[in-house]
Amino acid sequence: MTEPLRTGATIGILGGGQLGRMLSVAASRLGLRCHIYEPSDNPPAGQVADAVTTAPYEDAEALGRFARSVDVVTYEFENVPTAALDTIEEIVPIRPGREALRISQDRLTEKTFLRDLGLQVAPFADIADTGALAQALALIGTPSILKTRRFGYDGKGQARLQDAQDAATAYAQMQDQPALLEGFVDFSFEVSVIAARSSAGEVACFDPGENVHKDGILRTTTVPARLNAAQRTDAVLIAARILNALDYTGVLGVELFVTPAGLVVNEIAPRVHNSGHWTQNGCVVDQFEQHIRAIAGWPLGDGSRYCDVTMENLIGDDMDRVAALSAEKNTAVHLYGKVETKPGRKMGHVNRITG
Amino acid sequence: MTEPLRTGATIGILGGGQLGRMLSVAASRLGLRCHIYEPSDNPPAGQVADAVTTAPYEDAEALGRFARSVDVVTYEFENVPTAALDTIEEIVPIRPGREALRISQDRLTEKTFLRDLGLQVAPFADIADTGALAQALALIGTPSILKTRRFGYDGKGQARLQDAQDAATAYAQMQDQPALLEGFVDFSFEVSVIAARSSAGEVACFDPGENVHKDGILRTTTVPARLNAAQRTDAVLIAARILNALDYTGVLGVELFVTPAGLVVNEIAPRVHNSGHWTQNGCVVDQFEQHIRAIAGWPLGDGSRYCDVTMENLIGDDMDRVAALSAEKNTAVHLYGKVETKPGRKMGHVNRITG
Repeated sequence: MTEPLRTGATIGILGGGQLGRMLSVAASRLGLRCHIYEPSDNPPAGQVADAVTTAPYEDAEALGRFARSVDVVTYEFENVPTAALDTIEEIVPIRPGREALRISQDRLTEKTFLRDLGLQVAPFADIADTGALAQALALIGTPSILKTRRFGYDGKGQARLQDAQDAATAYAQMQDQPALLEGFVDFSFEVSVIAARSSAGEVACFDPGENVHKDGILRTTTVPARLNAAQRTDAVLIAARILNALDYTGVLGVELFVTPAGLVVNEIAPRVHNSGHWTQNGCVVDQFEQHIRAIAGWPLGDGSRYCDVTMENLIGDDMDRVAALSAEKNTAVHLYGKVETKPGRKMGHVNRITG
Repeated sequence: MTEPLRTGATIGILGGGQLGRMLSVAASRLGLRCHIYEPSDNPPAGQVADAVTTAPYEDAEALGRFARSVDVVTYEFENVPTAALDTIEEIVPIRPGREALRISQDRLTEKTFLRDLGLQVAPFADIADTGALAQALALIGTPSILKTRRFGYDGKGQARLQDAQDAATAYAQMQDQPALLEGFVDFSFEVSVIAARSSAGEVACFDPGENVHKDGILRTTTVPARLNAAQRTDAVLIAARILNALDYTGVLGVELFVTPAGLVVNEIAPRVHNSGHWTQNGCVVDQFEQHIRAIAGWPLGDGSRYCDVTMENLIGDDMDRVAALSAEKNTAVHLYGKVETKPGRKMGHVNRITG
């Protein structure tokens, strides 16, 4: 893929949730079609896509048909099974590339990669068994967090250790999956940088946003974040170093802890990110279009921030507030088309222009 | 329909062009699905809709199935055949309502309606035959324009008369269709007001935009328009008077000639309008979402303009400029997914933030 994709070309998206939905809408602005691949029925992204394949990631035949019907494949989540990626990649390019997926699918690999880049990360140790946990606790101490190496999101697969006596309970929660112990970082707050790299290697970052989590789930992102000029520069340089090291094409989310000793990388996500939703109402080109531009071989768009925004996630029963929110001034409502409301389920978000 | 439509509800859209496409995207932001009804294959709107019916407007059975599958019907063009509307309206509400369609489908009815509201319009006369044309020319004089009463758009179905000797040639161009003679209005420039009225009767107008046409097709719309405060107020009052007189629900485009003697209404369109595309990058809630909000029973959104924008249509070969445009600062590219480029065909538009 050396030429930019033109009107009529099709982007394949693995995963049909809200990120896929908003990617599909962004692709349509550029004249491009989307084909969604998703195991579950009636995916939110399918409501605004040109085609949908409903099949499991183990169905090589369906994956092959899907791959042959599109010009490039991207994904809305990093835990796509490796075999599915192998099948697809024989037929059509995957953007962002496999290396970014390999690294971000495993917290240990990710932490090691970041540390080897010279970036600050929390102290960490591989936990293969209870013996390793005891040894790691002696080094890293408490408070600390035990996390499964794979398949964690929104605080799932994590156990907090307040002291060494919590070790057995925490380890049991890992259910014999490979795990990682992370030391506690005493941070003031968390920011994230939504960074993009084009296929030609240009890099552009959206302004860092300040995140507030509750119960392990992102609640709000506010721009501008409370960063000074030096911190702002550091944040962008860190993101750019990661993008270049991965020879990355697309949008990447980087979560950073702000500490007196500088910025500590919490985690990276090789995709559009919940903390970048504010860009839909704060920039001419938002994170979704920026990702589509990158993977479609277009130049990056203008992601300069032109106003102050607070993004608030609508989770579960927050949907009861939609009637009131829809009448608020300076407020954009974004809903995901999910009919069933469940506690902890991301149903939509609002972007409030605050200045 | 007294309750606002919620996530999972479906909006039916008659017409699958770019306006339907951008309406469908706006509906998705509010969690709503769209079902497109369009006679021709592969409509641009179908690429971002939940369902598409491909059938002619004469197919009562297909219309019935379509109407039963949706919660409300709207349209992207005003020339929907009356019989099709009758079939649909027996099953599901049509928004905006039939009166607005009846009036805007016929230039004579429209001009009469506007004049009877006390608004300034160009002098006009019903032209049923060549005798009527001779009489009307004696009254209205030249330069003037002969227009078919129905089915005209983008300058089609129009003939200009520089003097009375042009009468026979101009009349022949009407091909025996009922026509209307319009006197020439000596105007400085044209503006349009994109106005919205909710089902509860609230009215909101986007800031008037200044239009430049070429060969009968809109080329650019610029906000702010060169209007003084009094003209700006007049423009909004005119639009509101029309909306209220029609007991209108949805977005309406009003084209106004700016003259030393005040604002003269050129024409109205009971739908989202090309001259309102700038709102996509100039407002928190754009004309497409405003229309969906109104017909879905939601409150109107915040359509305040927060920056200066020039919208430029990409017509025919303008598509060759997309590569260059996509690299411009402060520029949002919007393409319609039309693979075949034809002279005069609207392929997309760009919104340039100018301040």
